Amino acid sequence: MPAQKSKVTIFDVAKASGVSSSAVSYALNGKPGVSEETRAKVLDIARELGWKPNGAAQALAKARTRRIGLVLGYDPKLLAVESYMMELLSGLSAELERHDYALLLRMAVGRDAKIAIIKDWIATGSVDGLLLLNLEIGDPNVELLKGHPEMPVLALADPSLTGGLPTLSSDDAGAVDMAMRYLAELGHTRVARVAGPEALGHSYIRDAAFSQITAELGITYRCLHTDYTPESGAEATKLLLSLTPRPTAIIYDNDVMALSGLGVATGAGVSVPGELSLMSWDDSFMCTAAYPNITAMGRDVVGSGRQAAQLLLKLVDGGEVGCVEESPYQLRARASTAAPQA
Amino acid sequence: MPAQKSKVTIFDVAKASGVSSSAVSYALNGKPGVSEETRAKVLDIARELGWKPNGAAQALAKARTRRIGLVLGYDPKLLAVESYMMELLSGLSAELERHDYALLLRMAVGRDAKIAIIKDWIATGSVDGLLLLNLEIGDPNVELLKGHPEMPVLALADPSLTGGLPTLSSDDAGAVDMAMRYLAELGHTRVARVAGPEALGHSYIRDAAFSQITAELGITYRCLHTDYTPESGAEATKLLLSLTPRPTAIIYDNDVMALSGLGVATGAGVSVPGELSLMSWDDSFMCTAAYPNITAMGRDVVGSGRQAAQLLLKLVDGGEVGCVEESPYQLRARASTAAPQA
Repeated sequence: MPAQKSKVTIFDVAKASGVSSSAVSYALNGKPGVSEETRAKVLDIARELGWKPNGAAQALAKARTRRIGLVLGYDPKLLAVESYMMELLSGLSAELERHDYALLLRMAVGRDAKIAIIKDWIATGSVDGLLLLNLEIGDPNVELLKGHPEMPVLALADPSLTGGLPTLSSDDAGAVDMAMRYLAELGHTRVARVAGPEALGHSYIRDAAFSQITAELGITYRCLHTDYTPESGAEATKLLLSLTPRPTAIIYDNDVMALSGLGVATGAGVSVPGELSLMSWDDSFMCTAAYPNITAMGRDVVGSGRQAAQLLLKLVDGGEVGCVEESPYQLRARASTAAPQA
Repeated sequence: MPAQKSKVTIFDVAKASGVSSSAVSYALNGKPGVSEETRAKVLDIARELGWKPNGAAQALAKARTRRIGLVLGYDPKLLAVESYMMELLSGLSAELERHDYALLLRMAVGRDAKIAIIKDWIATGSVDGLLLLNLEIGDPNVELLKGHPEMPVLALADPSLTGGLPTLSSDDAGAVDMAMRYLAELGHTRVARVAGPEALGHSYIRDAAFSQITAELGITYRCLHTDYTPESGAEATKLLLSLTPRPTAIIYDNDVMALSGLGVATGAGVSVPGELSLMSWDDSFMCTAAYPNITAMGRDVVGSGRQAAQLLLKLVDGGEVGCVEESPYQLRARASTAAPQA
């Protein structure tokens, strides 16, 4: 598309606004370097004069904030131990940085507080787009955002939870299948799972997959839901170790619970993997720092954060994003899993 | 100070702006609920009409962004494993949330990128204040910010590094003293330290304290600087275990290196604490999830994040903050330390 010369130039806008032409350029292109006040004034005057951007520039229609919004609904104590979230934030903010974008972070605990912030961001245009995480079943933010197509949004969630909003999702059901077949091949027939909160969408999806696949493989399956903290992982492990007969393998929904589960088993004199196999989900640094190294369903969480940023910026630029899948899970077999004792 | 009634009311401003009086109130008080464009327009008109705020309101002088800026200079892979930073961010953003403030996060690696962002924030007024972390010796951001007293700033650093900027600091030298006296009392005379990067201000302060206190206590002290990653912690531990004579105790500058050091020792058949005592710094969840539980210099990092937010918001409100000390370190003795074998 050839650039089309408009009759009104940025020099006309600069003259009428009483600022320099470079300030006008910054303002019209949503770049830093001018105050919000000057930006608003320049945009007003450009609109009055009928200035039109060359080529595909959309600056006149919407001044960019160069901010992406994220509301984390975590208790601060939980966020502090969630390596998944820190890896995701790392990738996300590193990729935003490459595009001169900032992450606007709020930490609202509870449904009402979260939706109030998102409504405010929509009303005030404080962000160019937003990322939705940890969707609940029937999450009210989905309906809200479907009613505001002007606000670009990407959900890190299974498409079944997002009512048509663009998604970046992981194949959790496939990973459950892979993990259970691995344990079945080792000879395990009694497997327990220490899971995350029941209300979270991805817990629900894993729950369904575990029930189906263990039934199919003839595995006796028991699931305990927790709040993801190391304390709750330790408690659940103690309970599972007290059962008769004991499960021969435990799989954890996050790394920190797997680490504390390993600590509980070792402390109770239950040898890993001799008497008990342990597996983790998400394979952060903790799985390879622990002894024995912990077998994990690994994925590139930092990479997913980067990918989420790229997709969101594509949406901000007016592009289309449907339902995208993350790079697949990998089963990383390590020393914490073995055949069960006869 | 009695409220002084000004001649021009917000109703006059509303009429002249063509918006509701509540929109004017939001705009003048820096509250969400109006677009940036409306806010700028209302402020312009209020200024033209000579509207003056009642009482101490400062809204006319400066519309609040309700954002606090933070530039993290981390490699994303490192940020993803730094439990200290996760805990700090958790406390910080939770406390900002209580005050309806957002955290504006950038992730610039390298001095030039970091200072460019801070200059931009100063020039555009994108944040109401900012937090400085991980100061280097002779950090150029200190000089920059001393030249811009209009931008409230709090440094999480020792006052010796900040040239008079307000600080929230920890008593690292006191903690080093406490840790070394503890090991000396157990009978250790050969102590090694796996430290963070040499260029960081707090590494430097700990370095000096370790050298002084170990000399005073007659402890043979050896220090290896790393990049804080679990891999570098594992490498340093392997090197230390290969020395003759071997150190009888190792102290790590962060938790994740202590965890991987414990894994290396256990994997090499070096019993902890029988043949080797291990200590960690900052006492995240990993220290109590690991087996044996790791003795640590603990502090309330989430609490420090909250305190930093409170001090910064006090500065934003025009208050004075000098050099404040965090709650003190505590030595949390656990199963990873014992008297050395004879």
